[in-house]
Amino acid sequence: MISVQEALHIVLNSAQNFGIEEIPFIKSVGRILKEEIFADRDFPPFNRVSMDGVAIDFQQFKNGQRAFRVEGIQAAGSEQITLQNAENCIEVMTGAVLPNNTNTVIRYEDVTIESGVATININVINKGQNIHTKGKDGKFEDILISQNTKISAAEIGVLATVGKSFVKVARQPKVMIVSTGDELVGVDEIPLEHQIRRSNVFTLVSLLERLNIPSETAHITDDKPILKFKIEGYLKEYDVLLFSGAVSKGKYDFLPEVFEELSVEKLFHKVAQRPGKPFFYGQTNTCSVFGFPGNPISTFVNCLAYFYPWYYKSVGIETDQETAVLGEEVSFKPSLTYFLQVKLESKNGKLVAFPITGNGSGDLASLVYTDAFIQLPSDKTEFKKGEVFPIIKYR
Amino acid sequence: MISVQEALHIVLNSAQNFGIEEIPFIKSVGRILKEEIFADRDFPPFNRVSMDGVAIDFQQFKNGQRAFRVEGIQAAGSEQITLQNAENCIEVMTGAVLPNNTNTVIRYEDVTIESGVATININVINKGQNIHTKGKDGKFEDILISQNTKISAAEIGVLATVGKSFVKVARQPKVMIVSTGDELVGVDEIPLEHQIRRSNVFTLVSLLERLNIPSETAHITDDKPILKFKIEGYLKEYDVLLFSGAVSKGKYDFLPEVFEELSVEKLFHKVAQRPGKPFFYGQTNTCSVFGFPGNPISTFVNCLAYFYPWYYKSVGIETDQETAVLGEEVSFKPSLTYFLQVKLESKNGKLVAFPITGNGSGDLASLVYTDAFIQLPSDKTEFKKGEVFPIIKYR
Repeated sequence: MISVQEALHIVLNSAQNFGIEEIPFIKSVGRILKEEIFADRDFPPFNRVSMDGVAIDFQQFKNGQRAFRVEGIQAAGSEQITLQNAENCIEVMTGAVLPNNTNTVIRYEDVTIESGVATININVINKGQNIHTKGKDGKFEDILISQNTKISAAEIGVLATVGKSFVKVARQPKVMIVSTGDELVGVDEIPLEHQIRRSNVFTLVSLLERLNIPSETAHITDDKPILKFKIEGYLKEYDVLLFSGAVSKGKYDFLPEVFEELSVEKLFHKVAQRPGKPFFYGQTNTCSVFGFPGNPISTFVNCLAYFYPWYYKSVGIETDQETAVLGEEVSFKPSLTYFLQVKLESKNGKLVAFPITGNGSGDLASLVYTDAFIQLPSDKTEFKKGEVFPIIKYR
Repeated sequence: MISVQEALHIVLNSAQNFGIEEIPFIKSVGRILKEEIFADRDFPPFNRVSMDGVAIDFQQFKNGQRAFRVEGIQAAGSEQITLQNAENCIEVMTGAVLPNNTNTVIRYEDVTIESGVATININVINKGQNIHTKGKDGKFEDILISQNTKISAAEIGVLATVGKSFVKVARQPKVMIVSTGDELVGVDEIPLEHQIRRSNVFTLVSLLERLNIPSETAHITDDKPILKFKIEGYLKEYDVLLFSGAVSKGKYDFLPEVFEELSVEKLFHKVAQRPGKPFFYGQTNTCSVFGFPGNPISTFVNCLAYFYPWYYKSVGIETDQETAVLGEEVSFKPSLTYFLQVKLESKNGKLVAFPITGNGSGDLASLVYTDAFIQLPSDKTEFKKGEVFPIIKYR
């Protein structure tokens, strides 16, 4: 049995590359950028008026002039006009090109305009004020967004600005999620006394949706020849298979044998952790196989603790390890890494994690009352209030 | 000019109700639950075996018996069987019903099975161990998920388990996002020297997508009769109109007049904040109108600081105010609330916010390098490293 650290190391070292695709920029939120985004011109592309008001030649103001005849209007979206007489001014609008022969903008709040003459009501102005100068935010061909950035609303604005209507992003893996277990029936069915409804596959679909990964689902009965036949096909067709159940010591836990017979290279089976000890991980040349233990919390936390980092590594993004302060003392005797469910609270800039003890790894409903798992290391048994540990958020 | 606190108060007091709709549960991630979810049976619905192994009658073990003949197998998904002879045992699989006449499970790791006899290799076992007892996680008709919960992967699992294939959620508002400004051209176009491409509407579309709100977009030229005609139609057709631009003092900033002529009740215009001072907010009986100032950062932060809380209030969810520790000293003289862009780092359980000073509210590209805004109050001018303030995350 290997440690969580060793398991994660193996998982990260086996990251895949799913290639690149080009998609409409407006569909790219949450995806990982696979090209550099350059400025297609200076930003701003011209000396841009940043307040509504009047534009003047500062030298006149400096010489004591306060009243300026309005010579014209420079609207946003109009071609640049030219101040003909240095003693006059031009009314200018936010977003407009600064008129030729002007270099300073006084906002309407500080001006009185009467009978076509603008009188400046303040005595201190600065040359160049209220002008967003050409190229101040970025020069032509500057890199505005680096490769491997996760695209958010902020990046969407920049992509629009530089005219990238299509953008190269990491292709998503093709994923099949498989449940096993003869006790499972469909969500629409009424289970018999000894049956329960399928839930883990839908939880996994939703966890993958958070990463913008579409997925398919299937259920296979606990019958070894059928399992083998179906999985053989899936291994050829998908980049990733996620299983829930059938990886432990039960008489019908056929998956490890089936994987072996289908030449899935076992990278590990069993990790020193709670929940989710019987976790299996293996690969073929083209497919990564995550065999999550079937208890709901086990499947859930293993997906977050292993599949998520594997995906991030595969698409080339680095993520910060979040941490939180333990809000209550915890005692945990087994020498296993303990993924403990917690409720998070933001208190004075600190993230405080309050443990919520459910009824073990089968207690799916307890996930509703928590936000994250705090990861308590295996080499200690007492964890004090105020100590800081890594967390894995799921909301 | 009102304060940020007053503005937010007015916005929250004018929250709308968009009604309720019923959708497939698997499509409900990110939506707000509008019914209580009850347990349709006890959870677990039977005394559930939680480890693969053998089930016995504990009294026999207590009496000193260590070798138990295997009488049968209880698989997951099979009807409950009965132990016929108390001196025997039954092999049981995780997820199976505990067989009649047994009350304790010993996992395979602690048992040797040879010639049909299971010998227990440990001397300490507890009555009832490795059994997840009926109803331990929840009783029939218990509330498992409260109304007004934001649905995540955790809730999806519970919905599946109780057979809620369709679920009632808050209907989303019908939103139109409108840009104005004659300097704007499409993303696919090559702008002339004095033009720039539209970007704010796409940023807003993406910010709404984070809330799972679909939206439509339009562009209207700076022509008052056209603006009035189009907006009159939108006010009737949509729950929310988001505008970007044309709310300040410019000669072509027609929106406030148009709103007045169309009987949009002005709830406020101008807020003591930077960026985004000229923010307009108003309502008709059926439509809320957010007039965001047109500078990119102004539109962005106003959507987060006002539209988001308004939406949360409208659909009935409460959100915690996140806070962060200022990582560097900041000085800001104007008596305005300052939404300052920051890069966040998680350090020892603390969230530390490092200010990134862009080139003003027009500098869209600077959003790429930050994660959040820290909200510095208007009644101070010096903000010290280590002080804690509210933050608004956008990643």
